[in-house]
Amino acid sequence: MQEFTRRWVVGVPELPISPTYLRRRRIHLHRSNSRDRSFLPVKMVTSAVVNTYPLSSYTFGTKEPKMEKDTSVADRLARMKVNYMKEGMRTSVEGILLVQEHNHPHILLLQIGNTFCKLPGGRLKPGENEIEGLKRKLSSKLAANSTGLQPDWQLFLHILNCLILVEFKRFMIFDGCPCKWLQLQIGECVAIWWRPNFETIMYPYCPPHITKPKECKKLFLVHLSEREYFAVPKNLKLLAVPLFELYDNVQRYGPVISTIPQQLSRFQFNMIHA
Amino acid sequence: MQEFTRRWVVGVPELPISPTYLRRRRIHLHRSNSRDRSFLPVKMVTSAVVNTYPLSSYTFGTKEPKMEKDTSVADRLARMKVNYMKEGMRTSVEGILLVQEHNHPHILLLQIGNTFCKLPGGRLKPGENEIEGLKRKLSSKLAANSTGLQPDWQLFLHILNCLILVEFKRFMIFDGCPCKWLQLQIGECVAIWWRPNFETIMYPYCPPHITKPKECKKLFLVHLSEREYFAVPKNLKLLAVPLFELYDNVQRYGPVISTIPQQLSRFQFNMIHA
Repeated sequence: MQEFTRRWVVGVPELPISPTYLRRRRIHLHRSNSRDRSFLPVKMVTSAVVNTYPLSSYTFGTKEPKMEKDTSVADRLARMKVNYMKEGMRTSVEGILLVQEHNHPHILLLQIGNTFCKLPGGRLKPGENEIEGLKRKLSSKLAANSTGLQPDWQLFLHILNCLILVEFKRFMIFDGCPCKWLQLQIGECVAIWWRPNFETIMYPYCPPHITKPKECKKLFLVHLSEREYFAVPKNLKLLAVPLFELYDNVQRYGPVISTIPQQLSRFQFNMIHA
Repeated sequence: MQEFTRRWVVGVPELPISPTYLRRRRIHLHRSNSRDRSFLPVKMVTSAVVNTYPLSSYTFGTKEPKMEKDTSVADRLARMKVNYMKEGMRTSVEGILLVQEHNHPHILLLQIGNTFCKLPGGRLKPGENEIEGLKRKLSSKLAANSTGLQPDWQLFLHILNCLILVEFKRFMIFDGCPCKWLQLQIGECVAIWWRPNFETIMYPYCPPHITKPKECKKLFLVHLSEREYFAVPKNLKLLAVPLFELYDNVQRYGPVISTIPQQLSRFQFNMIHA
């Protein structure tokens, strides 16, 4: 396990468009029964088999910083309390996005500063649907902005790549809005965590004596298509972290992220190679 | 969390047959679409909602001891090696049987001696179906034996209870064989663990450099009906252990059992009261 890098800081992979890729793309789209437009496949997908593509399938760029709303844990808990008074229990959703390297699943995590890692996601608006809310949050964290878009050769190449697919296969409809170019399918809920009090500690059950939990956080598997363009806020780093690095590593990743390997263990990963 | 006992050693609960119980029984059977004979509902059941009945719904007796095949960990690993040479990778299945107390899910564990706890289950025969194999193992560990059955007033009361149901509701067919009186439905696979080498350590993924894992262990949720009769081998204790006792308690329960709360967190428990 030590012979290759344990975490991959996402770089600028190349974008080969080979006949194999086009064939596999067709198979993938056929399997997922999708002639869907980007971001339109909003239904939840449930399957025990998860197609996992290599990191090099994806294109990465940057966008304007997404600053954290709070500068300290105390501030965050205080804001949580204020919001609870206004809106009741906080509900949040996070996405588990998977890629593969060396035939092993890796999870995409956003790193803030040098140590803290988090899953992409965030708080739902009151009454918002979980699936729609998670798509909104993933788009806000990882999709290119439609407004104020800077010229970006990676995005250009990605769109060109997709347009070639359209031309050859007529699988996708390009609607001209790059912000909608994330073709994610929200899959199974794999875990639910509860925050009983305005404290950092969360549990994978609502403790029996707690009648008014302060937060309910749901983790969803997100099925990526074979090609995606991710725009990462400049103040964050996107990491691809292998399951074996997360497992039994509560010190580094906390209780929620470090037990994702156990929650994903029931899935069969269909490792698709470039 | 401290105000009530954290683990319940299963005793001899009473068996009330109230109109409420009969009505609920009918609802339960209707919901699970079951006019099935005991142990005949062999299909796998998948649902995000799990009905959880109080411990007092169930009847417990004893049966002849089920001795462990090995007297030490070294013996066990040596036997595993011998079996691997003959039959290839060991596949084992274990069942997560849930009850509720104080509105909190509890898992049934078998305790050997004073410290070691395990889930009911065991090794599949070569080529055996997982669901059938788990039923066989649960029957061997927890069902009354049809042969050499000693007079047992608890079992007698349980059968009487069920016969009254039959008489009044004609929901079940009593086929006269007490060993088939466990009405379990095998549910979702919630975790898969891999043993890369002939060692005690297991992982919730097959490590990428391992091409020939030595064991694959699958954990399944088992849906209990509202009434069951469990016959516990005399050398074992059946414990109902709450999720909050298992959580973050790897020292006491090991990595497999202590992360069951995280794996079950995505389910909604429908707590049904006596």
